[in-house]
Amino acid sequence: MIIVSYVLGIIEAGGTKFVLATADADYNILQKKRISTETPAVTLAHCIDFFKANPVDAIGLGSFGPIGIKQGTQDYGHILATPKPGWAGTDMVGTLTDALHVPVFFTTDVNASVYGEYIAGAAKDVDSAVYFTIGTGIGGGAIQDGQFVGGHAHLEMGHAPVMLHPDDHFAGGCPFHGNRCFEGVAAGPTIELRTGEKGENLDRDNPVFDYIDYYAAQMAWNAYLNLAPEKIIFGGSVISEDDMPRVRAYFDQLNNGYVQVPEELIVHSHFPDNASATVGDFALAEAALKAAN
Amino acid sequence: MIIVSYVLGIIEAGGTKFVLATADADYNILQKKRISTETPAVTLAHCIDFFKANPVDAIGLGSFGPIGIKQGTQDYGHILATPKPGWAGTDMVGTLTDALHVPVFFTTDVNASVYGEYIAGAAKDVDSAVYFTIGTGIGGGAIQDGQFVGGHAHLEMGHAPVMLHPDDHFAGGCPFHGNRCFEGVAAGPTIELRTGEKGENLDRDNPVFDYIDYYAAQMAWNAYLNLAPEKIIFGGSVISEDDMPRVRAYFDQLNNGYVQVPEELIVHSHFPDNASATVGDFALAEAALKAAN
Repeated sequence: MIIVSYVLGIIEAGGTKFVLATADADYNILQKKRISTETPAVTLAHCIDFFKANPVDAIGLGSFGPIGIKQGTQDYGHILATPKPGWAGTDMVGTLTDALHVPVFFTTDVNASVYGEYIAGAAKDVDSAVYFTIGTGIGGGAIQDGQFVGGHAHLEMGHAPVMLHPDDHFAGGCPFHGNRCFEGVAAGPTIELRTGEKGENLDRDNPVFDYIDYYAAQMAWNAYLNLAPEKIIFGGSVISEDDMPRVRAYFDQLNNGYVQVPEELIVHSHFPDNASATVGDFALAEAALKAAN
Repeated sequence: MIIVSYVLGIIEAGGTKFVLATADADYNILQKKRISTETPAVTLAHCIDFFKANPVDAIGLGSFGPIGIKQGTQDYGHILATPKPGWAGTDMVGTLTDALHVPVFFTTDVNASVYGEYIAGAAKDVDSAVYFTIGTGIGGGAIQDGQFVGGHAHLEMGHAPVMLHPDDHFAGGCPFHGNRCFEGVAAGPTIELRTGEKGENLDRDNPVFDYIDYYAAQMAWNAYLNLAPEKIIFGGSVISEDDMPRVRAYFDQLNNGYVQVPEELIVHSHFPDNASATVGDFALAEAALKAAN
């Protein structure tokens, strides 16, 4: 069957808001709506209403986690043990497909981001990439030859063990790992926990940003050793293009000449306003549609 | 074409010895020879002589590294910047295929090991696995759905950053990273560097083994977060089946209830005498043969 025309849908499912949108086959946005994240019943009913009013042929759904992504298991398509009240156990894919009868590609928000970069962004000319978001939390997604990395479950790169910056004596903000994971020492909330001020009120010369760049570099270094991607891409609200030179310098310090890495390995997201996930979700909707036909 | 009968060859290319062998389609060994690693010219001539005397239809070659594994690049099939005198730049695959005219599957020794475990060992019932060897160095290989993980290059998991055991004040043995990578604090030579004694002369109650189990657990934890495999398998001469309970306990401490991992995630190699790589190399020879036909 040759598909000549179709409409793609996306759900960017976040802990505080959901973004719903439709687009044509060139990813030109047709409709878009932002809703706040309420109970699963209310929020998913809003999603269903939106896509009943604006029918689509497939949906790409990048979700907050943890989620069940291993096909063929009982947990597939579900939100797992999230601390977000009421959401643990929610059958996202089942609820949507029962109501809308279209294929749904279900993955993590960061996998959607890495896919967006891989299809049309910073990784479009390579075969493998890692995407990190540093925001309220820290997440990472990885792709190799078109397949997401992750066997039993999705990746949890933000909780990987961390070597502390020698001057950083912060006790850490991760409820599970304290200062013993990247999220605990480099996620957005650690800035206020360290300084009493929100990041946007601080001068960029504040040492806290030096620490965060060091940890970003260490995340990239750890990812490189564990996955050997051709691109490592940073998104999220905490660091920007301006941080990249310092991140690259710390990466080189950590490597210390051990491995030769690709030119321009470490880059900032290609898309403004963290839109990698939007592009990725549309591309995943398209992949789901093609797989179903 | 239906292949009815064939002979498989392997080369286990190590820094001190090469193992050459042939087997039938059921991996029953037909001939086997061990040679010491001399110059590339001498060593590869021995390999070629062996396989001219004992012809095979394909060769699985698991090699010490670093090696070029990205097909289509200039480095593919070569030994890269090894400190081993004379070996940097050696064209392993080109030299062998020019002389022997059979397909060669070229990968790292640890990738061969993880493949052996995946085909017939501890990971034979799952879709994804990581294999660590802790010996003179520390290496890791990863497989997901039959494909090795690694985009730009092979993995270098042994050099990933490490959080030191709180009681361990060892300065580290890695020439590149000191005590700032797993190899620097947990590879075999660190035992003698710490204690002045070889591991085999020490009581297993020596705290050095506690440290090594802690680092093994941290390697497994880091790998789980970066790759989410269904099995993490330890081989090599430094730790054994007896270490697994303590490794698992440290892993649970590091996780601290954050993620739910598969039952029996962490296991020791299925094969005695670190034979995972032998099985893997034969299976890779078979894969190369099938891909070529």
